[in-house]
Amino acid sequence: MAGNTFGKIFRLTSFGESHGPGIGGVIDGCPPKLIIDIEFIQSELNKRKPGQSEFASPRIETDKIEFLSGIFEGQTTGAPIAFFISNNDTKSSDYNHLRDVFRPSHADFTYELKYGIRDYRGGGRSSARETITRVVAGAIAKLYLLQQGIDIIGFVSSIGHVQMKNVQQTLDRKSIEASSVRCPDAEISASMQSLISDVKADGDTLGGVISCIVTGMPVGLGEPVFDKFHADLGKAMLSINAVKGFEIGSGFEGCKQKGSEQNDQFVIVDNQIHTKTNNSGGVQGGITNGENVFFKVAFKPVATVMQKQQTVDKQGNEIEIEGKGRHDVCVVPRAVPIVEAMAALVTIDHFLRNRMYL
Amino acid sequence: MAGNTFGKIFRLTSFGESHGPGIGGVIDGCPPKLIIDIEFIQSELNKRKPGQSEFASPRIETDKIEFLSGIFEGQTTGAPIAFFISNNDTKSSDYNHLRDVFRPSHADFTYELKYGIRDYRGGGRSSARETITRVVAGAIAKLYLLQQGIDIIGFVSSIGHVQMKNVQQTLDRKSIEASSVRCPDAEISASMQSLISDVKADGDTLGGVISCIVTGMPVGLGEPVFDKFHADLGKAMLSINAVKGFEIGSGFEGCKQKGSEQNDQFVIVDNQIHTKTNNSGGVQGGITNGENVFFKVAFKPVATVMQKQQTVDKQGNEIEIEGKGRHDVCVVPRAVPIVEAMAALVTIDHFLRNRMYL
Amino acid sequence: MAGNTFGKIFRLTSFGESHGPGIGGVIDGCPPKLIIDIEFIQSELNKRKPGQSEFASPRIETDKIEFLSGIFEGQTTGAPIAFFISNNDTKSSDYNHLRDVFRPSHADFTYELKYGIRDYRGGGRSSARETITRVVAGAIAKLYLLQQGIDIIGFVSSIGHVQMKNVQQTLDRKSIEASSVRCPDAEISASMQSLISDVKADGDTLGGVISCIVTGMPVGLGEPVFDKFHADLGKAMLSINAVKGFEIGSGFEGCKQKGSEQNDQFVIVDNQIHTKTNNSGGVQGGITNGENVFFKVAFKPVATVMQKQQTVDKQGNEIEIEGKGRHDVCVVPRAVPIVEAMAALVTIDHFLRNRMYL
Amino acid sequence: MAGNTFGKIFRLTSFGESHGPGIGGVIDGCPPKLIIDIEFIQSELNKRKPGQSEFASPRIETDKIEFLSGIFEGQTTGAPIAFFISNNDTKSSDYNHLRDVFRPSHADFTYELKYGIRDYRGGGRSSARETITRVVAGAIAKLYLLQQGIDIIGFVSSIGHVQMKNVQQTLDRKSIEASSVRCPDAEISASMQSLISDVKADGDTLGGVISCIVTGMPVGLGEPVFDKFHADLGKAMLSINAVKGFEIGSGFEGCKQKGSEQNDQFVIVDNQIHTKTNNSGGVQGGITNGENVFFKVAFKPVATVMQKQQTVDKQGNEIEIEGKGRHDVCVVPRAVPIVEAMAALVTIDHFLRNRMYL
Repeated sequence: MAGNTFGKIFRLTSFGESHGPGIGGVIDGCPPKLIIDIEFIQSELNKRKPGQSEFASPRIETDKIEFLSGIFEGQTTGAPIAFFISNNDTKSSDYNHLRDVFRPSHADFTYELKYGIRDYRGGGRSSARETITRVVAGAIAKLYLLQQGIDIIGFVSSIGHVQMKNVQQTLDRKSIEASSVRCPDAEISASMQSLISDVKADGDTLGGVISCIVTGMPVGLGEPVFDKFHADLGKAMLSINAVKGFEIGSGFEGCKQKGSEQNDQFVIVDNQIHTKTNNSGGVQGGITNGENVFFKVAFKPVATVMQKQQTVDKQGNEIEIEGKGRHDVCVVPRAVPIVEAMAALVTIDHFLRNRMYL
Repeated sequence: MAGNTFGKIFRLTSFGESHGPGIGGVIDGCPPKLIIDIEFIQSELNKRKPGQSEFASPRIETDKIEFLSGIFEGQTTGAPIAFFISNNDTKSSDYNHLRDVFRPSHADFTYELKYGIRDYRGGGRSSARETITRVVAGAIAKLYLLQQGIDIIGFVSSIGHVQMKNVQQTLDRKSIEASSVRCPDAEISASMQSLISDVKADGDTLGGVISCIVTGMPVGLGEPVFDKFHADLGKAMLSINAVKGFEIGSGFEGCKQKGSEQNDQFVIVDNQIHTKTNNSGGVQGGITNGENVFFKVAFKPVATVMQKQQTVDKQGNEIEIEGKGRHDVCVVPRAVPIVEAMAALVTIDHFLRNRMYL
Repeated sequence: MAGNTFGKIFRLTSFGESHGPGIGGVIDGCPPKLIIDIEFIQSELNKRKPGQSEFASPRIETDKIEFLSGIFEGQTTGAPIAFFISNNDTKSSDYNHLRDVFRPSHADFTYELKYGIRDYRGGGRSSARETITRVVAGAIAKLYLLQQGIDIIGFVSSIGHVQMKNVQQTLDRKSIEASSVRCPDAEISASMQSLISDVKADGDTLGGVISCIVTGMPVGLGEPVFDKFHADLGKAMLSINAVKGFEIGSGFEGCKQKGSEQNDQFVIVDNQIHTKTNNSGGVQGGITNGENVFFKVAFKPVATVMQKQQTVDKQGNEIEIEGKGRHDVCVVPRAVPIVEAMAALVTIDHFLRNRMYL
Repeated sequence: MAGNTFGKIFRLTSFGESHGPGIGGVIDGCPPKLIIDIEFIQSELNKRKPGQSEFASPRIETDKIEFLSGIFEGQTTGAPIAFFISNNDTKSSDYNHLRDVFRPSHADFTYELKYGIRDYRGGGRSSARETITRVVAGAIAKLYLLQQGIDIIGFVSSIGHVQMKNVQQTLDRKSIEASSVRCPDAEISASMQSLISDVKADGDTLGGVISCIVTGMPVGLGEPVFDKFHADLGKAMLSINAVKGFEIGSGFEGCKQKGSEQNDQFVIVDNQIHTKTNNSGGVQGGITNGENVFFKVAFKPVATVMQKQQTVDKQGNEIEIEGKGRHDVCVVPRAVPIVEAMAALVTIDHFLRNRMYL
């Protein structure tokens, strides 16, 4: 049973390869009568696009979205929404030398053995270009969630060993977008950029951490015992290329605390029940408690390095390879819209799932 | 849409409350002709049981399993397997004072608001007693996986600030079971026990980290782009009570490395393709690569502390409460069989999903 | 991927065998705060029970329901509802002679070959005793639907060649229950009973047709293009043991008409849009249109006849068998509560699915 | 929860409207390394196309298929297969007069009330033009099934009151395609054509019945107790536009027989177990028994008649309308490839589901 559909009520089915005709998706279960703001969707896509900065891949893609169904007179109709983005700048010949090679820490080896066949051009289906579909569907989800007062803000909180402090307080989208690495702390942002430049000069690559805050959350989203809100959120994040870790609230650090330190005590603020602290990250017992949802996502460094590496080919020979093609030094800044999009997909899905209790 | 079923092919549906008649589950999709070793299943349950040590809840439950269907002459038949474990030692009166109280960092508040009704006795449905169902289903999954040469070994790698080194090499089940905190490093185990004693004296509680290794994995398990092996594994772990974080392979630490350090280079060992290192944790591109699967799970400290805490009741009054009832100081050792069980459920499910490619 | 769960939002997972410990199920997704009227549920079960008349199986089962979870102080809590009915009168020895025999038009042969193992006692999992789970879940669904003004009325409209006229107008539950064959037309009912007596004397069996009407339906239930209301209804009915056909509205007969005869013209009645006729059976474009839903279900005759039949055993020998054990001459009257129950499950599921559009 | 995906392992997600950019779908779960014979797929599409005969809609569509993903060097890769067929001959202005009208026995009224918005052009999403997606996915399924020796043959067995005899013996594809109404009995075919001509002259329309036979079926497909083979087949057929009834094997007629007549006795033929008769239609206990699967599907007459009909508009006025636009007198012949396609989708899905038992 293949796994290219995400969600239970608001469901995205993703398709497309890096160097095929294009990338697209079908959303089934979007509420009808939602006004589709194409400029907003395109602006979300642009945040993910390659070629945004010197340390991102120079592949030039307009990534222009085309809707194939489900929209009538500017609104959703309840019918499935299909969309498509053509691949234009596909230099497939860049990849001919990889036809028989298993690049280290890429998906070449596992795809070849699982499926017995592999579209080797630019990673084929395993390329992060697939995340376009998530950004589009996430943007539509955001349009709906914004109507409900729910907003999602992601940013880069660390690259390599350079990391921000006081991450949970950050809610300023302007300072995020002002930074070419999407880090709202100007000083840290500068250190990150300088680190990236150094590492690029060595032909090496970097990973990092994205933090994300969801504001305006209602109480009640999440379906115990398995489909807890943060469990589905974790799965969503871990399904993004290069993600190796997920934390909700105080995460791994919080596990070093004692119960008396970790517990979020309830208080009355403005006649409403709130928690004094938010170590829970807005989720208790798998259900949102009305506080901001706060989580972190760990991205490993880009696997393609411009250095010699040992590896093995399809015929079982040990060989040496060196990165070619157009690659990012650090994808973490470009991954911010993807993290936000997946958070939007989980949130709208649980928002609609919660409707059965109304 | 509620969320009490886990898995796509091997599917566990869980039911039961802490202080109702009992806890049980139904497994649909278990392969037929599997010999059911009830002693093994019971021994797995015993590892999870309360009352194993001085720092675990003294609630006395035999947790004796009863099968209601799906087994004929000692073997599975392909029909759904239902099982049930009675609740015996239910001191519901212990909880009368909690009928209207929202305990800090428990699920009382969110359940009350989501469902509009709440079985407050012992946490009701939100109690970790539900994890019995996972251990039973996981034990059945293990019986199948062992036939395929797949083994799952979990252990406690940190409690509070006390943590093990060189975690990924640990594969010695004897030294794990020899430790009352299920930590295979004898020295660290002693430190953990002494920490727990200190904290218990203060009426406080502790969290920690469980590490887990799956050996004998075939290449090819995992269904990109959404149902990646580690994405489903992460969801499985995050669905366990008190879990706040998940890492695969080198996780958050690995994100500080450069690509040239993080990458797992391919080599030929005994005529087979392997990786020299295993920073990937046995999963590449969302698909197992035949190396050991390695991951970590973060548990927050137990929410019920024997200290005064500020909170709010159902009527909106700010009040003070203090822990009563029978509670663990640190559940992490008892959670080892649960982590293993969820890993077994994810593995068998993906093992069976992968059958469509054969 | 096994198939023992029905529904998307209101989901029944069924378990149990004819001669194992019992029959049960788990309902996940029942709305919380529904008052559980156990007497009503038991009365529904009693309608399905064996031993109701001279032509039904004399097996004596109290079929007393026990709830294992999900109900607190008489109401549903949103947690899964598990229930169990013990098998008491299990004369398994009646079936020893069938261990190696494939009875004609039973499931013995297909179960043996599919699963490689078979609980041969009383048909095991393939026994119609499984339908108990549907009646219980259906009764709970009915409790919810009745609150919404939706009522479901099934009755026997034909047995063998004896059939009612003017079936769609029948809405009188009293006259249905007054008939031992659940046919509301007293004259036809008498003919049916006399036919059954004759056929019983020959050691033979009968099939028939159940008609069913759902009143009080809102406009809007059904999810094109695949999960049309009548498509899910058809699947539900065809999943009942012995069912071989399904029709919505004018069904096969309507296909002989011309468009001008078949079309249901819209009219205004009491300021509301209605159709003049109801050939559509209350569903248009796969969505309920507010008229009564009307459908028919065909049951083949009972496969176990008290006559000699040719067949084959597991070892491939051609043999002769003759029916033994306690069997119905005609199950159609006992199947009325099952048809109603499955209609209730489809209706509540689509009712809750439709909530995402609110 | 919307319903535009069909299948569990081999899953088709359908999208598109009659007068939007086009119609398409995504298949997730197609086995890798299947050779895609585009000519065969196009030939299946051509059988469904309008404009094939004088009594079919004169709309001119090339219905040329374009693949967007999932195929590499002529073979499937295990990645989702997306395809798209443009709408060319869309005379949307033909439908302006229907913007506010609810046509009798169409989906206008139910779509308007369910979604609160409706693409009224040519029926929008409710148009049978959507069935293109089924034919494409079904053709790919057929390519796989043919490799397994499974073949699917549908034909028209009745139109209006003209009907074939001895339907279950028909397996001659040539004589089916030789008939412009896809009826293999030349005499009956001529009567059907003459009936259609007469009815067309009156501006009226016709329905009919399609019969279908699946040969080469293995024993073991079908997943009791809910996902029985014929239950999923029934749902598949009932999800096709205009279908009002479904029968497996001897269906409604068989319910008039006695058990001794209906039962299919087992015999040994060429050292294999077979049934002497096939009243079961190749399915027993919900599982295929290796005999031909045989079923019938009832289509109501086309709703658009060229006669005056009474109806109601959106504003609640009673009005009269008369059919305009390009419509079929009888769609049943064009529906044959759709019935076959849905049978192929059910068969491949259950074929792959059955893999877990291997």
